Amino acid sequence: MPFKTTRLALLALLAGSATQALADEGQWLPHQIPQLSLQLQQAGIALPAEQLADLTQPPMNAVVGLGYCTASFVSPKGLVLTNHHCAYGAIQFNSHGEHNYLDQGFLAPSQADELSAGPQERLYITEEVRHVSQDVLAGTAQLTDGYQRHQILERNRKALISACEADPNYRCSVRSYHGGLEYYLLRQLVIRDVRLVYAPSESIGAFGGDIDNFEYPRHAGDFAFLRAYVAPDGSPAAYHPDNVPYQNNGHLTISQAGVRAGDGVLVAGYPGRTSRHQLLSELSFAATWQYPTQAQRYQARIDAIEAQTDPAITVAYAATRAGYANRMKKLNGLLDGFRKTDIEGHKQQREIQLTAYLKQSDQTEWLTELRRLIAQDQQQYQAEFYLNNAQSGALLQAASRLYRWAKEQQKPDPQREPGYQERDRQLFVARLARLERRFDPRMDKILWQMDIQAYLNQEQRDPQLDQQLAQLDLDSLYLNTEILSQTQRLAWMARSAAEFEQSRDPLLRMAVALYPGNETRRKANKTRQGELAQARPALMEAMLQWYDSQQRPIYPDANGTLRISYGQVDGYQAADALYKQPFTRLEGLLEKHTGQAPFNAPDKVIAAIQEGRVGHYARADLSQSIERPWYCRFWSCAQADPIPFGSVPVNFLSSADTTGGNSGSPVINGQGQLVGINFDSTYESITKDWYYNPQITRAIHVDIRYILWMMSEVDQAENLLDELTLQ
Amino acid sequence: MPFKTTRLALLALLAGSATQALADEGQWLPHQIPQLSLQLQQAGIALPAEQLADLTQPPMNAVVGLGYCTASFVSPKGLVLTNHHCAYGAIQFNSHGEHNYLDQGFLAPSQADELSAGPQERLYITEEVRHVSQDVLAGTAQLTDGYQRHQILERNRKALISACEADPNYRCSVRSYHGGLEYYLLRQLVIRDVRLVYAPSESIGAFGGDIDNFEYPRHAGDFAFLRAYVAPDGSPAAYHPDNVPYQNNGHLTISQAGVRAGDGVLVAGYPGRTSRHQLLSELSFAATWQYPTQAQRYQARIDAIEAQTDPAITVAYAATRAGYANRMKKLNGLLDGFRKTDIEGHKQQREIQLTAYLKQSDQTEWLTELRRLIAQDQQQYQAEFYLNNAQSGALLQAASRLYRWAKEQQKPDPQREPGYQERDRQLFVARLARLERRFDPRMDKILWQMDIQAYLNQEQRDPQLDQQLAQLDLDSLYLNTEILSQTQRLAWMARSAAEFEQSRDPLLRMAVALYPGNETRRKANKTRQGELAQARPALMEAMLQWYDSQQRPIYPDANGTLRISYGQVDGYQAADALYKQPFTRLEGLLEKHTGQAPFNAPDKVIAAIQEGRVGHYARADLSQSIERPWYCRFWSCAQADPIPFGSVPVNFLSSADTTGGNSGSPVINGQGQLVGINFDSTYESITKDWYYNPQITRAIHVDIRYILWMMSEVDQAENLLDELTLQ
Repeated sequence: MPFKTTRLALLALLAGSATQALADEGQWLPHQIPQLSLQLQQAGIALPAEQLADLTQPPMNAVVGLGYCTASFVSPKGLVLTNHHCAYGAIQFNSHGEHNYLDQGFLAPSQADELSAGPQERLYITEEVRHVSQDVLAGTAQLTDGYQRHQILERNRKALISACEADPNYRCSVRSYHGGLEYYLLRQLVIRDVRLVYAPSESIGAFGGDIDNFEYPRHAGDFAFLRAYVAPDGSPAAYHPDNVPYQNNGHLTISQAGVRAGDGVLVAGYPGRTSRHQLLSELSFAATWQYPTQAQRYQARIDAIEAQTDPAITVAYAATRAGYANRMKKLNGLLDGFRKTDIEGHKQQREIQLTAYLKQSDQTEWLTELRRLIAQDQQQYQAEFYLNNAQSGALLQAASRLYRWAKEQQKPDPQREPGYQERDRQLFVARLARLERRFDPRMDKILWQMDIQAYLNQEQRDPQLDQQLAQLDLDSLYLNTEILSQTQRLAWMARSAAEFEQSRDPLLRMAVALYPGNETRRKANKTRQGELAQARPALMEAMLQWYDSQQRPIYPDANGTLRISYGQVDGYQAADALYKQPFTRLEGLLEKHTGQAPFNAPDKVIAAIQEGRVGHYARADLSQSIERPWYCRFWSCAQADPIPFGSVPVNFLSSADTTGGNSGSPVINGQGQLVGINFDSTYESITKDWYYNPQITRAIHVDIRYILWMMSEVDQAENLLDELTLQ
Repeated sequence: MPFKTTRLALLALLAGSATQALADEGQWLPHQIPQLSLQLQQAGIALPAEQLADLTQPPMNAVVGLGYCTASFVSPKGLVLTNHHCAYGAIQFNSHGEHNYLDQGFLAPSQADELSAGPQERLYITEEVRHVSQDVLAGTAQLTDGYQRHQILERNRKALISACEADPNYRCSVRSYHGGLEYYLLRQLVIRDVRLVYAPSESIGAFGGDIDNFEYPRHAGDFAFLRAYVAPDGSPAAYHPDNVPYQNNGHLTISQAGVRAGDGVLVAGYPGRTSRHQLLSELSFAATWQYPTQAQRYQARIDAIEAQTDPAITVAYAATRAGYANRMKKLNGLLDGFRKTDIEGHKQQREIQLTAYLKQSDQTEWLTELRRLIAQDQQQYQAEFYLNNAQSGALLQAASRLYRWAKEQQKPDPQREPGYQERDRQLFVARLARLERRFDPRMDKILWQMDIQAYLNQEQRDPQLDQQLAQLDLDSLYLNTEILSQTQRLAWMARSAAEFEQSRDPLLRMAVALYPGNETRRKANKTRQGELAQARPALMEAMLQWYDSQQRPIYPDANGTLRISYGQVDGYQAADALYKQPFTRLEGLLEKHTGQAPFNAPDKVIAAIQEGRVGHYARADLSQSIERPWYCRFWSCAQADPIPFGSVPVNFLSSADTTGGNSGSPVINGQGQLVGINFDSTYESITKDWYYNPQITRAIHVDIRYILWMMSEVDQAENLLDELTLQ
C-alpha cells in the first residue's frame, strides 16, 4: 500500500512544471482567510486577506448562488456570469419552435430583449453569516437520548430560520460545520426575476459533451450571462415587465491579460459536500460497498434503458440515462482513483497520528464510540439501500410523499418535517408537477421491478414491504391508479390523511401501508443522527486541537456554504510520461472539431479561428512565428507561411480546491480580477471528495479570454462588453 | 490547407521542451555521414563522422541484418541484441509442450544450452557496399522501349549478383537508390546457425500487445539475445552441435549511464521503404484511393474472420487477423496523420519551389512525362487491385506460383524471373510448405469470395478471369484439388509445365488458364517500370542539383539497405495541452499492469519493482525523495514513508528518423555506446513514410537500462552480463 503513494508522488516529480506544487488544499470559510495570509502571499495573491474575508466588499460581495451553482456579478447592473450548464434550465425554458437557443445560442440585443429564465429561477445573495452554535445547541448539553437530541436540534434550527425569514425576501438556513461542532445561520436575499442575457450554443457551451465530461484537455465554452431584476422600488419581485436591473453593491472587474502558468488564483463559491474529515472506516465502506453497489445499480438501469427501442421511452429517459452515466463516470473515477492513490493509507496514517496525539490526554474513548456508531450506520445503510430502492417506482414515490404531506399537515407548521413545511410548498408542487417530463409507465415498471428483484435477492427484509410485494401486480397498479394524472396528483395535496387511508386507489393504499415502516426507519435514523451529532463533534474538536497544536488552520468539510479556495495555474502528470499542460487553445478546439455532435463547433467559430481573428486575446507568449521549411528561406513560401495569430486560451487548470456546487464560481487573480469561471474537474481529481492530492487534483476553468474572444470576435456582443469593467 | 500546418507547428511551440527541436530528418547512407559532421556535432555526437562512415569499424561493423529486422553484436563472441518481436520465430520454434518460452521466457544457463533458432533463421553481415551504377545501366542509354530497358537492367543486375554469390556463403543484391539514379551492390556474409540465448516472456517483450502497438507512453521489454554460430573452421554452416560462436570483428560497448532528454543519438539499421521523394500526385493517390481502399478491404476481412465461431478457424486465422489489424492501424495512422498535418501542402510547396528552380534551366519537360507515367501506373494499379485480389484464394495462389515455377524452369537459370531462380528454391519450398499453418478451406473460400465479389462490383474487367469466375464452383474446387495436400503441392514443384497443362486438377487448370493474362499484365508492368526507371532518375537528378545548389545533402528514400539516422532524446506534443515525455519508467509499467493479457507482467517483475530493487539502473535525477504529508514532520510516518528507489527507464523517445526494418536497430550515444534498441514509432509518426515532421516524429526505443535491470535484478543473467562490455 505505501508503494502506491510513492509511485504517484514520483510521477509528480517528473511533471517538469517550473513551479513547485504548493499544497493548495482547503475550502476555507471567508472568516478564516486572515489566518492564511502567508500562504496566500506565497501563492501570489496580493489582495489583502482582510478584504477577502469581508463579504461586504469585492470580490466576495460579487459572489452569488443559484441554489445548485455559483455565479458572480460582473457589472453594477445585476449582470452575472455563470456556467452554460448552470443556465441550461433558463435556456431550455426559452427554447421552443424556431427559437432553439440550445442549438443557436442567445444574445439579447438590448436589455429589453432579455428573457425571463422561468418562474423557478432564483439568485441568492448571501448577506449575513452568523455564528449560532449556542442557539442551536441550547438544551442539548445534558441529553443522552439520540432521538431527543435530534428533535431539539431541529426545533432550534427551525426557530432560527423562521425568525430570519420574517422578511419574505430572504431565504435562511442553519448549516452544520465540522459534523455539528459549529452552526452558522445564512441569510440570503432571494432575487426571483432572473433573465437570460447571453449564452453560446450548446455546441460551444458543452463542446465535447459527455465524452469530454471530467476529461482534459478540454475545450468547453461553459459560460452564460444572466441578469438579476427587482421591482422598480428595488425590492425582490417575481418576473414583471416593469422590473428593473438590480443595483448590486459590488462586482468583479475583468482582467483582459488573463493568467499564466504558475499564477496564483482564488475560487469563491458554494461547494456542496466533501468527506475529507471522515474516518478510514467510512472511506473503506464507500470504496468496498457503497460505490461498487451504486455503480452496479446504475449500470443495470442504463442497460435497461438502452435496451428499449420505443423512441418515446428513449426521449423520456434521455436525461435520466445521461444522469446515471454521469454518476457512473464519477463512481468509476472514485474507484479508479482509490486504486491509483492509496487514500486509505493516507487516512490510516492520519488516524494513527491523531490517536497518538489523543493518547497524550487520554481522550480516545469517544473515538471508539464514534466508530461503533458509524459501523451501525453503515449496516443500516446497506439494509435501507435495497429497502428504499424497492419503493423506487416514480408513482409510488409521489404517492408516499403526498400521504406524508397530508400526515405532516396534522402538525403545526414549525413541527413539521423539513421539506414538508409551508415554506417548501412551492418546490413540493413543482416536483410533483414535473414528474411526467421524465417518465413512461412502461420503463418505470421495468426499472422498479429490477429494484424489487434486487431487494428480494438479499436477506435484510421488512415484513410489511414483503407483504406488499407479495400481492403486487405492477400492470394493474399502473392501470388503476389515478395519480398517473398530474391534475389528480396535485389535487391530492389538499386531501387529508384520512382521505388517503380511505382511498381505493391501489398506489395510495400501498403508500399508506408502507408509511408506518418507513416512519419507524426515519425515526431510527434520527436517533442515530442525534447520536452522531454528539460523537462527531468530539472527533472534530480533537482534530481542531491537534491541528491547532501544529499552528495549522483546518477547514470544515464542504456543506454548500460560501467558501474560498486558492491555488496555482498548473498542469499535472496524468500518467507515466503523460503530462497535461495547463492551457488549451483555439487550435485544439479545431483539432477536435469533426462537425459531428458533441464535437460540432458552429461555423462562425471555426471561421473566426481559421481566419486568425484573435482580437486582443491572444497569448503573446504563444504568438511567435514557427520554424518554416528550409526551402522557404530561399524562395517565398506564401502559401505555407504560418499565420502568426498566436493563440487564445480556451480552458485552463488550477490546483484550487473545488467540488460540485463550485460550478460557475469566479476564478480570480491575485489582484481580485476575474480571470475565468470554474466548470469541472479532471478525472484524476474525482477522489478529492475524500483526499486532496496536490499532485493531481486540478479544477478546469473557462479562460476569461475565450469568453471575451467569443463576445468580441464571434458574437459581436458589444453592448455587453461595454457593460463589463475590462482592465 | 496552410492553416493546418500552422496549427501543428504552434502545437510544437507549446511543447515546453528545453531543447529546441532540430530537424533530424534523414536516413543517410554511411558514406554520406562525413557531409553531416556539423549537424552531428550540433546534435551532440562526438564520434568522428569518418569513423561512423567506416563499415569495418565500430559502431557500424557491429550492425547486422536479420532479413526483416536489424540487430547488433554486443560481444566478440557472436552475441547479438535485437527485438523480442524479431526473435519471435526463433522463440516460437523452440516452444512446445511444457517449454512454452513465449509464455515463460528463455535464458540459456550456459552456451551449451543455447537453442537453434530454426533452419530458416539467418544473420546477414554487410561486408561490402559497391557503387555499380555503370554496370547496371550498361546498354540502356539509347533505349526508348520501356520493356527492353527493364529486361536489360534486370539482366545486368542478375549478372552482378551471380558473380558476387560465387561464394555460397554470401548473399548479394543490387539495390536501386533515388528511383534508379544509382545502384549499389550489397555483399552480405550469411550466418546460417543462429541460436536463441535469452528472451523475456512475451508478456514483457510485447507488454501492452496490440493495444499499445504504435502507442506511447509504452512499457515494452521488446528485446532478445541471439548468437551467431559457424563451423569450427570459422566458415558459415548450417546448425551443427560442433559449431562454435562466430568471432566478429567489432561489437558495441554498452553505456550503463544511458541517455538523458536532449542527448544526441544515432540509429543504424535497415529501414525498408519510404516515399519522401515521391511526388504530390503519388501522395494524393495513396491518401484518396489506395489507403482507404486497402483499409476497407482489411476491415471487411477482419469482420469476416471475427464472424466465425469455429475455434479451428479462429486459431488458424489469429495471426492473419492480427496482421490485418496491424496494417489497419498503420493505414488509419496514415489517414489520420494526413488530416492533422497538411503533408500534401508540404509536397506541393516543395514541387512549386523545385519547378521554379527547374525553370531556370528549362528542364521541366521530363517532369510532365514523369507525371504522365505515374498517372498511368496508378490507373493500372486500380484495375489490378481488384483483378489480383480476385485470384486471392490461398490455393490458387500456390497453384499459380507452381505453374509459373514450371514455366520459368524452361529458361536457363539466369533468365528466370527473380524469385524463380535456383537461388530462391529453398524459400519457395518453405513458403509452399507452410501454407497450412494459417489456412482453413472454409475461411479461405469466404475471404476469396469477398474479393471476387469486389472485382465483379467494379467495371475494369478481364475477359479471361470473367470466364473462369463464371464457371467457378468454390466448393467443388476445394473438394477436387489435390494440392490441398502439402505433399502433393511440393511434388508439383518437380513437374513440367506440360504436366500442369494436361492435369485435370481444377485448381491447376484455373492457374494455367489465368497464366497468359497475368503474364501480359506483368509484361505491361515491366514496360512501365522500365519507363519509370528512366523518368524518375531525371527527377532525382534535378532534386540533387537543387539541394546541392543550397549546399544541402539529400538522402535516398529507404530501400532496405544500411542507413544511419541521428536525432535527440525528446518528447512531443501529441495534442493541444497533451505533452508526451521522453521516458517511461518501471512505475508506469506497474500502473498499467492489470494481470490480464496484454498487461500481465510476470510476478517476478512486479515483485522486483515493488521491492524497489533497481540495481545500478535508476535515474539519479528521479530518485529524490518526495514531499511527505505535513504531519509526518512531527511524528514518524514509517508506513507512509516513500521508498526512495528512484526510477528505471523502460522506453524512451527520440527524433531519429526510422521506419519498418529499423526494428532491433541499435540506438547509440554520441560516444558510440549502445543506449537502447529501436522497436516502434508513435501513432502520430506513421506519416513519416511520406513526410518527416520534426515536431511529432518520434521513434520508440527500449532503454538499455531496462534490459540490464531485467538481466540483473529479475533474471540473474550474470553469465550474459559478464560477456557484455559495460561502460
